[in-house]
Amino acid sequence: MKPIPTLEWRDDYLRLIDQRLLPAEEVYLDCRSIQELACAIKTLAVRGAPAIGIAAAYGAVIAAMETPESESFFDDCETLLDVLASTRPTAVNLFHCLDIQRELLFSSPSKAMAVERLLNSAHQLFEKDLEASRAMGRFGADLLPDGCTVLTHCNAGGLATAGLGTALSVIYEAHSRGILSCVFADETRPLLQGARLTSWELQKAGIKVRVLPDSAAASLLRTGTVNAVITGADRVAVNGDSANKIGTYPLALAAFEAGVPFYIAAPVSTFDSGSPDGTHIRIEERGREELAVMGNRQILPAGVEVYNPAFDVTPVRLITSIICEKGVISAPNQIEW
Amino acid sequence: MKPIPTLEWRDDYLRLIDQRLLPAEEVYLDCRSIQELACAIKTLAVRGAPAIGIAAAYGAVIAAMETPESESFFDDCETLLDVLASTRPTAVNLFHCLDIQRELLFSSPSKAMAVERLLNSAHQLFEKDLEASRAMGRFGADLLPDGCTVLTHCNAGGLATAGLGTALSVIYEAHSRGILSCVFADETRPLLQGARLTSWELQKAGIKVRVLPDSAAASLLRTGTVNAVITGADRVAVNGDSANKIGTYPLALAAFEAGVPFYIAAPVSTFDSGSPDGTHIRIEERGREELAVMGNRQILPAGVEVYNPAFDVTPVRLITSIICEKGVISAPNQIEW
Repeated sequence: MKPIPTLEWRDDYLRLIDQRLLPAEEVYLDCRSIQELACAIKTLAVRGAPAIGIAAAYGAVIAAMETPESESFFDDCETLLDVLASTRPTAVNLFHCLDIQRELLFSSPSKAMAVERLLNSAHQLFEKDLEASRAMGRFGADLLPDGCTVLTHCNAGGLATAGLGTALSVIYEAHSRGILSCVFADETRPLLQGARLTSWELQKAGIKVRVLPDSAAASLLRTGTVNAVITGADRVAVNGDSANKIGTYPLALAAFEAGVPFYIAAPVSTFDSGSPDGTHIRIEERGREELAVMGNRQILPAGVEVYNPAFDVTPVRLITSIICEKGVISAPNQIEW
Repeated sequence: MKPIPTLEWRDDYLRLIDQRLLPAEEVYLDCRSIQELACAIKTLAVRGAPAIGIAAAYGAVIAAMETPESESFFDDCETLLDVLASTRPTAVNLFHCLDIQRELLFSSPSKAMAVERLLNSAHQLFEKDLEASRAMGRFGADLLPDGCTVLTHCNAGGLATAGLGTALSVIYEAHSRGILSCVFADETRPLLQGARLTSWELQKAGIKVRVLPDSAAASLLRTGTVNAVITGADRVAVNGDSANKIGTYPLALAAFEAGVPFYIAAPVSTFDSGSPDGTHIRIEERGREELAVMGNRQILPAGVEVYNPAFDVTPVRLITSIICEKGVISAPNQIEW
């Protein structure tokens, strides 16, 4: 399968496919400054926990290139890394990748060496993510029955990682093994990553996909049509509680109620040793405009406020297994972590 | 409070506020033929189980006026009632009101008498709905604590009935008693009745309202901020299972999980003696365009199909009480119906 051009380093800039415009337009965004990249992350031109991490890793290269050589080079450059760190609070991969790059930065003897090392490191993180994606696909597909129908939420695909995705990597692998019947994709309000991105990716791969309103997943699950629910994660706490795109928790609840297995696919870089459980995960709240306007259409009356959290936390007791690149953590609820 | 001009009979036509255009535009739609009215119901210019019923009752008047006097007048007129009956399958109020009107039609000695009797009957159904709405408001508000925050789904307000609504009637009454703090309104994909209509109504009434994605309700309920969830219903089966706008079932599940009471407010005309339980309720599936396009914006890639049921069924075990105009049915799960 042809990989999706989510992010690509080109000599001295990072090229991103602009996910805000998909599927109507395939436009590329070239980030040459931290300001451009920070804006791309904040506005979800690039999104998905692993992809944000890789983008930030390349961002560190841009930061080092952008910072003038001076006595305060290392501190000035770190200030730019802090700008990247402040873009989005929930996905831990961002902080994980920035920590790796920050350490490299301060262990470099010069600007030139810093740029070189940071770039090598970013490439390695990219490759590692690609390999993790393949491994999750293999481990996850082993869990699925022949002829399976799978439901997924948001976009945990090639557009969310350097590789073929987390949850979607499992789906791609099931498809290539010939055991996949079809995929249901929650549209995923408010930014519609399921409707716009997941369906676009899966259709390109020749996989049959149907999009549904998020609120229709629960009754669909009760019909017995779906064999498994698979989503990604933005942060997995030490006890297994997992933050993911808003709507994942009610989906897990509905799957639990319907007796349908609920799987999370996430690389080890999404596991956060700093969060003992889900209550420690900071949930980003986003702006009113995401709910107020659709295309050229006014949805909300002027003055009406919104509640727009970008993520929720699924308690570990609702999670059947967590699929990572090292293998499958079965019944994470029963593990002494 | 000024009632909302949802439907109004004017000499020889039915005037509807066009709910497809709210809140951006307040446009009125004058229905003088069954074709116009059937289209208005199908495309949700008028919607909400009780309002559809009343609209169809006035539709019977239009049908009688529209049918030429002849030997086959009664059969020809009934054919037009069948057109109305075929508009939407789930809300039982439509069939309930049409049954009343059909009986009156066939017991009338002439076209002129039929028109007169059908109009009187439609006015009576309108008045009865208005009174039911007031009674539900009173009974429902008695269930709410002082300073309460309430969450609702879709629009079960003045725009869904002849009066002040079903669920929203309870909210209006709580507001006028001074015990309401604020309302959370699910936006209610795909047609956004919560974002467009409920917030519009409540804001006009001076009630503080915040709109959230449907998928954010579950995590909001877990925070303990919400004291009660109240929705309407489109059909209540004999055992208490209730069909309502898609997303009601996962909302009830999340409320149950969070220990928040889940109330349904519905007039007796929504109770269906022909449906022993929820499995007997026919669920309308709607078209792809509701998910594919937003304003001028293409959301779905060409060729991607959808799953778009308009309703789901909430099992009675998740319903704390059903509020109707006769009183409150507490613990409907434990009743021998």
